[in-house]
Amino acid sequence: MGPSQFSARIDLRSDTVTLPTDSMYARVRSTPLGDDGLDGDPTAQALEGSTAAMLGKEAALYAPSATMANLLAILAQVQRHEMVLAGSASHIYLAERGAAVLTGAFYHAIPDPDGALDIGALTSTLASTKGNLKTRLVCVETSHNNEGGAVASLEHMASVYEASKTAGADVHLDGARLFNAAIALKVPASAICAQADTIAVCLSKGLSAPMGAVLVGPKATIDKARWLRKLIGGAQRQVGIAAAMGLEALDTMIDRLAVDHDHAKALALGLQDIRGLRIRHPQTNIVQVNVSGTGMDAREWEARLRAQHVLVRPWGPALLRCVTHRHIDASSVSSAIEAFRAISV
Amino acid sequence: MGPSQFSARIDLRSDTVTLPTDSMYARVRSTPLGDDGLDGDPTAQALEGSTAAMLGKEAALYAPSATMANLLAILAQVQRHEMVLAGSASHIYLAERGAAVLTGAFYHAIPDPDGALDIGALTSTLASTKGNLKTRLVCVETSHNNEGGAVASLEHMASVYEASKTAGADVHLDGARLFNAAIALKVPASAICAQADTIAVCLSKGLSAPMGAVLVGPKATIDKARWLRKLIGGAQRQVGIAAAMGLEALDTMIDRLAVDHDHAKALALGLQDIRGLRIRHPQTNIVQVNVSGTGMDAREWEARLRAQHVLVRPWGPALLRCVTHRHIDASSVSSAIEAFRAISV
Amino acid sequence: MGPSQFSARIDLRSDTVTLPTDSMYARVRSTPLGDDGLDGDPTAQALEGSTAAMLGKEAALYAPSATMANLLAILAQVQRHEMVLAGSASHIYLAERGAAVLTGAFYHAIPDPDGALDIGALTSTLASTKGNLKTRLVCVETSHNNEGGAVASLEHMASVYEASKTAGADVHLDGARLFNAAIALKVPASAICAQADTIAVCLSKGLSAPMGAVLVGPKATIDKARWLRKLIGGAQRQVGIAAAMGLEALDTMIDRLAVDHDHAKALALGLQDIRGLRIRHPQTNIVQVNVSGTGMDAREWEARLRAQHVLVRPWGPALLRCVTHRHIDASSVSSAIEAFRAISV
Amino acid sequence: MGPSQFSARIDLRSDTVTLPTDSMYARVRSTPLGDDGLDGDPTAQALEGSTAAMLGKEAALYAPSATMANLLAILAQVQRHEMVLAGSASHIYLAERGAAVLTGAFYHAIPDPDGALDIGALTSTLASTKGNLKTRLVCVETSHNNEGGAVASLEHMASVYEASKTAGADVHLDGARLFNAAIALKVPASAICAQADTIAVCLSKGLSAPMGAVLVGPKATIDKARWLRKLIGGAQRQVGIAAAMGLEALDTMIDRLAVDHDHAKALALGLQDIRGLRIRHPQTNIVQVNVSGTGMDAREWEARLRAQHVLVRPWGPALLRCVTHRHIDASSVSSAIEAFRAISV
Repeated sequence: MGPSQFSARIDLRSDTVTLPTDSMYARVRSTPLGDDGLDGDPTAQALEGSTAAMLGKEAALYAPSATMANLLAILAQVQRHEMVLAGSASHIYLAERGAAVLTGAFYHAIPDPDGALDIGALTSTLASTKGNLKTRLVCVETSHNNEGGAVASLEHMASVYEASKTAGADVHLDGARLFNAAIALKVPASAICAQADTIAVCLSKGLSAPMGAVLVGPKATIDKARWLRKLIGGAQRQVGIAAAMGLEALDTMIDRLAVDHDHAKALALGLQDIRGLRIRHPQTNIVQVNVSGTGMDAREWEARLRAQHVLVRPWGPALLRCVTHRHIDASSVSSAIEAFRAISV
Repeated sequence: MGPSQFSARIDLRSDTVTLPTDSMYARVRSTPLGDDGLDGDPTAQALEGSTAAMLGKEAALYAPSATMANLLAILAQVQRHEMVLAGSASHIYLAERGAAVLTGAFYHAIPDPDGALDIGALTSTLASTKGNLKTRLVCVETSHNNEGGAVASLEHMASVYEASKTAGADVHLDGARLFNAAIALKVPASAICAQADTIAVCLSKGLSAPMGAVLVGPKATIDKARWLRKLIGGAQRQVGIAAAMGLEALDTMIDRLAVDHDHAKALALGLQDIRGLRIRHPQTNIVQVNVSGTGMDAREWEARLRAQHVLVRPWGPALLRCVTHRHIDASSVSSAIEAFRAISV
Repeated sequence: MGPSQFSARIDLRSDTVTLPTDSMYARVRSTPLGDDGLDGDPTAQALEGSTAAMLGKEAALYAPSATMANLLAILAQVQRHEMVLAGSASHIYLAERGAAVLTGAFYHAIPDPDGALDIGALTSTLASTKGNLKTRLVCVETSHNNEGGAVASLEHMASVYEASKTAGADVHLDGARLFNAAIALKVPASAICAQADTIAVCLSKGLSAPMGAVLVGPKATIDKARWLRKLIGGAQRQVGIAAAMGLEALDTMIDRLAVDHDHAKALALGLQDIRGLRIRHPQTNIVQVNVSGTGMDAREWEARLRAQHVLVRPWGPALLRCVTHRHIDASSVSSAIEAFRAISV
Repeated sequence: MGPSQFSARIDLRSDTVTLPTDSMYARVRSTPLGDDGLDGDPTAQALEGSTAAMLGKEAALYAPSATMANLLAILAQVQRHEMVLAGSASHIYLAERGAAVLTGAFYHAIPDPDGALDIGALTSTLASTKGNLKTRLVCVETSHNNEGGAVASLEHMASVYEASKTAGADVHLDGARLFNAAIALKVPASAICAQADTIAVCLSKGLSAPMGAVLVGPKATIDKARWLRKLIGGAQRQVGIAAAMGLEALDTMIDRLAVDHDHAKALALGLQDIRGLRIRHPQTNIVQVNVSGTGMDAREWEARLRAQHVLVRPWGPALLRCVTHRHIDASSVSSAIEAFRAISV
């Protein structure tokens, strides 16, 4: 694809499409490297150290992807014949269940409307002994991918944490978009992380690093996760090449996520006036558009928008997902609204 | 560590310590990128296409590490309650057994002296129905890491392949150092790969890429491995950053492995005259040094050599492993020999 | 416990408490035996043959328990990284999930109010590709243990079967109380079994055999289950000792289950007049009693009834379960009602 | 098969073919029963209590088979990503590996010539950190099924136990024929059991019970095994039917195993004079006959002996296994020797 084509295209499918910044490339060129399987890679160590510090945890581990960071958190904290609870619409439960079967743990779903675990269902499940499996880990997600980027309150997070710890379970936070949640709540990310034992943060969504994630938590858990990372093939050698871009992302890209949130709100505002569309108010950078009142289903909308060079993702039979990110500016938002409007007429 | 310290150090522990070349850095800067979870990353696709073509297989898949490439090969070709055979000294059997327990397959060891599976033991195990598990995959390794970089002959490879296929099993080749083996045999790598169904090649050993591996094989197997790669967290987004360096490695670094072999031979030649040392003739870039005749064990040798800025790895109570690579030149070889000699006196 | 104590006790906790009949003991004494691990046990073979014939399936396998019969059905029909759907209140999902983690399959719950899978949820889950795991088996249960012995209609069973097969999934029926369901529907058990591929029937509930279950299904599936039974330690030697009692149970005990249903109805009728109790109309031999209107919770009711020599099981904070069976006669029912009434006053 | 046919047949294939005794049948008829899933079955409890006491351990658990008792011992003592060591010719390693893949543990084989683990290999494997999996359990077997019923000395057992415990591993003894070993060593079975943490004993081999096994060990381990037994479907209801026969076997059948040993010695003595046969001296009730000097292979011998109504089992290309048991008397031994002799001529 040539550059002109790209600029002509408004890609709202996901913030995972973001490309590295110039400063990321520059950092790769100058960063020190080592063999992460021998003496350690200094850049990966720097990334791990600074992420742990930023999120207020003892230790951190680089992983090739957020999916692997989540898997390592579960493998490190849950044994065979123990139970993992996760939101029924969460990414870990819905999209990463393929990893579940490798863990020997049983995944049980807790309803999570608006991205917040139902505390009643959580508490009664933690107390239940049916099936005789003990819950060892409760997984939460913020911002919540399938619930339109919803962000649970700190109070809710604290309730989940207290109920879980009281029942002898740890809490893992799938923070693939943790910094979006922190901006929405107007708190430092560490304030959210205080309500969980381990947290996985993704470097390659809005933060624009090409790949990678970091798992943070207690040193003993991270040590075990490091050992497990090697076992499943997630350890790499001069991994500083990837870690350097992640470090640059953490240094330079967090604050600008607020811009994505503004663009999401502008997009929502523009779309809600279009006949037949119902818009879920965006707390972060995800806009969910319900097209059930338009006489066209999500697939047809997707195809027509694509013909207008606006890319969105069907998120159910009548739902579209639009995600704002670094490559979406105010003008992209206007053009996208225009495309929607043209089709709706 | 500063540059001067580095140049002062002769690191023979592994070829995994190799750093990226300038042309690798340059290629990263200019390579096209995409989201490998959406439309695909064009650089990863180029790496996969060219590796498959070079090795004479239908399809290929980038993986974050050779360990994961091996694991994906097994997960894609073996089901629960099926059996994997692997050399008793092979990397898959010895060092990657931690991944084994995730597969639901049973790993049974076949003796592999000098890096070649014992054909008699292989055949009788394939024929055996004890325990009622059917062998679905036979794993071989060349060059063979634990056997001093030994390279089995093409005739041996063909025997293994024929015996396995006759018994209804596929063959996976752990080709972490496949190109070293090809150079030793003076054949194209594809000639070796013709004796296996799937092959994992590592980009980050002598080839000097910082990370990554490629799995090649039949399209259906690779499609399944791609699906599995996502499940276990090995899928990445703008993975072209890593793939670009791998592509550059394949384009520029294969032929020079012959130099490493020459250095290994020179090192062996120099060491074999030192009293008490017994040297295994190196077929590739690994020199195994038996110190049992010296009155010192491997750990003591390692410590004394380290004091001389020569780094080697104990490989058993009386065995040292020395690996040549791009950062080891003729002068390093001479210095290493001198260090050994000084200690032996 | 002496006989007099037993007669004084009215045990409504479960039909699993039933003791063997005299004719079962007699049959054990005369039945031919063999080594089921060598030539086969003729009595086990007779039990398997007659159960398969009675339920209209090709083949059958004796298992030590219904839990193992269900596990074998899943292991034989589902591979690692495939999905099992089961009712969210079903025994397989709730009480047998500990076995799930051994299968490498992912268990996903479908709501099953009144013991009938929600067809909409079933269909949309079968169609979903979220998480990329293919559903290979749909598990249903009739009569439904947790839903007060509810029995889904044949039409419902047929809908589930058609939706599943259309989506490429097989159907397993947990028929621990299959014959109770058949009596409730006034159809032969084979009519229910026609709506499933494999069926597990329990011999040790109302049928009064001391132990054991039978899995029926296609010959290829049963052959695989037989192999798996040996692997997990479910194969036994002169198993005809247990099978003989099971055969006698099938020959003599099915029709009399209707009496248990009559007693359940009588019990329900008697209890529904007691103030504060809400009774779920029993379709089979299970009476669920809701005590939330009585000012006492289920544990307190259980304790007070126990003091009156009436044993029931708390089935949730405000729910009691009462199960009728061979050792509960009309007089036991009257006494139980009196005990409830005395406590409620 | 009628009784006359049976008496005409000399079945040396295994001691698993033994039928229950009259006193076992009588005991079944009078034994008290209970629901082992509710209040417990008194006969199973009596069997568990007396076995634990006899073997000098805290607690015991009835299991449907020795295979399951072994599996439960491993599941209860070993977690995912831990290692189990077992003799390379042991039943657990060779014949029960199908269960292994359910455990998430890695099984590593230690050579066990003559039924005794190679202490050097054991020690070095326990010390090894290759692959980074920690050994959690060492499995031994006595008498040793594949090594002609060989019995390791108490001193050897003590060496294995000490080496294992020192390295932080527990020891499980597959004592399927424990009492044969005790008789061979002229010690109480508890003396052997003192060199292991958990022991599985089989009730259905020479002891003649139709089915079942008992696992003994520390109370905490047995409690966990009981929980796991239910999970995998090994819990049964009025299991006293089977346990009663097991109790009777323990009460009445242990001492008479010495007769089987005498018959094995007599058989060996008679066969060793036959040209071409090489006999392994039997320590217990298993006679291994090497037919490689006879010009016929094991399968041909088996067929010819079968034509003479003598049943044996091929145990490799040139090996036959003959097992003495309660249905083999002195006259059977003579007839078997005659049949061998007639064929060898």
